[in-house]
Amino acid sequence: MLNFDFYNPTRIVFGEKTVAKIGALIPENARVLILYGGESAERNGTLAEVRTALGNREFYEFKGIEPNPTYETLMKAVATVREKGLDFLLAVGGGSVIDGTKFVASATHFKGEDPWQILEAWGSNVTQAVPFGVILTLPATGSEMNSAAVITRSATKTKALLASPLVFPQFSILDPTKTYTLPARQLANGIVDAFTHTVEQYLTYPVDARVQDRVAEGLLQTLIEIGPKVVNEPADYDSRANMMWTASMALNGLIGAGVPQDWATHFIGHELTALYEIDHARTLAIVLPSLLKLRRNGKRAKLLQYAARVWNITAGDEDTRIDISIQKTREFFESLGVKTRLSEYGLGDDAINQVIEQLTQHGMTMLGEHRDITPDVSRQILQASL
Amino acid sequence: MLNFDFYNPTRIVFGEKTVAKIGALIPENARVLILYGGESAERNGTLAEVRTALGNREFYEFKGIEPNPTYETLMKAVATVREKGLDFLLAVGGGSVIDGTKFVASATHFKGEDPWQILEAWGSNVTQAVPFGVILTLPATGSEMNSAAVITRSATKTKALLASPLVFPQFSILDPTKTYTLPARQLANGIVDAFTHTVEQYLTYPVDARVQDRVAEGLLQTLIEIGPKVVNEPADYDSRANMMWTASMALNGLIGAGVPQDWATHFIGHELTALYEIDHARTLAIVLPSLLKLRRNGKRAKLLQYAARVWNITAGDEDTRIDISIQKTREFFESLGVKTRLSEYGLGDDAINQVIEQLTQHGMTMLGEHRDITPDVSRQILQASL
Repeated sequence: MLNFDFYNPTRIVFGEKTVAKIGALIPENARVLILYGGESAERNGTLAEVRTALGNREFYEFKGIEPNPTYETLMKAVATVREKGLDFLLAVGGGSVIDGTKFVASATHFKGEDPWQILEAWGSNVTQAVPFGVILTLPATGSEMNSAAVITRSATKTKALLASPLVFPQFSILDPTKTYTLPARQLANGIVDAFTHTVEQYLTYPVDARVQDRVAEGLLQTLIEIGPKVVNEPADYDSRANMMWTASMALNGLIGAGVPQDWATHFIGHELTALYEIDHARTLAIVLPSLLKLRRNGKRAKLLQYAARVWNITAGDEDTRIDISIQKTREFFESLGVKTRLSEYGLGDDAINQVIEQLTQHGMTMLGEHRDITPDVSRQILQASL
Repeated sequence: MLNFDFYNPTRIVFGEKTVAKIGALIPENARVLILYGGESAERNGTLAEVRTALGNREFYEFKGIEPNPTYETLMKAVATVREKGLDFLLAVGGGSVIDGTKFVASATHFKGEDPWQILEAWGSNVTQAVPFGVILTLPATGSEMNSAAVITRSATKTKALLASPLVFPQFSILDPTKTYTLPARQLANGIVDAFTHTVEQYLTYPVDARVQDRVAEGLLQTLIEIGPKVVNEPADYDSRANMMWTASMALNGLIGAGVPQDWATHFIGHELTALYEIDHARTLAIVLPSLLKLRRNGKRAKLLQYAARVWNITAGDEDTRIDISIQKTREFFESLGVKTRLSEYGLGDDAINQVIEQLTQHGMTMLGEHRDITPDVSRQILQASL
């Protein structure tokens, strides 16, 4: 096992009808900004519940945080927080709203010239953040239980990462019934996202971290078991509850503690989203199977473990077992309605050239757990994804 | 899945040579009391490392916290903290020292007449606690990553529980090399303790909490895999590292979130320790197999799952599979050198009568996940353990 430092102070309040509990979790005298995305939070009644639960507290609302939240939009929220002197943020939504709120929390008291510098420093220059809570409506990214965020700069088509212990949510409300009105597409994306988060921290090379491996395998098995039900049965409490908790567990630091991590699929995927607005999870579904195929030598021992423990594949020679496990991964994504080929999104060699150019420009030239995924290797991976 | 509230702010610093990091984790101006047990902390050099790491901070030492730490001893530490006006505690040891430190932390500023009232109220009346950190030397109880403690009152042979969110350690240093000098007996106890903690939260009835189940199964599988090596190979880093992290994960709240919990084995075992000074883990090894055997109907579905997933037993009728899984559990404990029969500890029917009397006197008359383990049922369990 590698050395590690694990810290995660986010309180998780899990279950049906838990939104009302924010009344006890937010300071009585807090002056609050509620941040959310589009119409759905209003339509499904969550915002009404939130307003009631806030009681006599003064609050304002900021609507319009987009999928892949942008610096440009978020700076307007920062202006509101500063102008009105607000001191508590409440994110109502999924990963985009939560990530956006983390940026607003960090940017409000930022001392530098331009809060974009926070992204340039990967969050290391955050010294103060506005405390915030989360009402999760879309399980997928795990942002509700970690201290990282991905922010997009529209002007330059750049996706950048911010991470700071100061942006752990103080609490996150996870009510599985809040997912009942989500479209199947978003749920399928959520499953693929949580699955890929787990794989990025699990499918590298062995370091005898037995608990982390078993937990990761348990998360993958759970996603495989519940995936079809989550996508096809809108009001099934148990499958939604399991999805919600699995997605949080997939990126709350636990399975990544003391093990090598990959994340190349994410970094390559980010460029596809920034350039072509393909849903984040779909970019992962495009990149991951090809990456596993091409990186099989460095990942051999863990791929065989993945085949055996997650997919129950124990017959055949090593490469056959690896091939079948990768094929099953691809089929699992496809079974949820998520296409796994660039060509199915209308992209070809030109797109690959552009992605490689962007990766190079953003310094993403040494990716993966061995830092050996150069732009040339990224190109091969994308070509295998055509 | 049941509703839950999960919160665990303890920072885990894991790995070789991490004791020195306390210098950065304890406030510069802290006035510290180091609490520890017997000679081993001095002999193995850990105390010397701690003193060096504290640098210029003023510190005092309190030696002599016994296994099953007593109110009587701990009140002397409370007096020291109060007299000298200390404001940070540092536990160097295993579960007993950490549990004792949690009591000292809670008792120092207790406003009531007698800090024993904290135990009478199960910790609900703790309103302030002295912050503290942990250097773990004996992995077993999980106390290094939770907010509970068990304290013994010698005068009345009573073991009582304290739990409060105010007594989470601020940090815990987990250095697997600190276990190299432990006697095999304590290591075997640690494995049994962590195993039983996991079972108490797992082997109840199904609530479709898939992640919690998979994690619990992963912890049990890990303990079974590493148990013999931990006990027999003193300086094997990987098995000790896995034991340390497994024991913390077994009782940090994660596998117990959103599921029913049993704990009858612990409550019955506590009386055996209080009356006859049998090591805590050994009392669990005595009670658990018989309890599972007798409670098989209420636990049937989970026992079958345990048989299949943890022990790979899938052939035979239900009761056969359950019997084999319980037998394997008993054999696992025995293989570590831990006896599982009351008679092997020189105890018989008289002892059973005494345990039942104490259980009744301590109000432990409705134990287990269904609250239906009456003193009569406890008697049957102990009789089956003869």
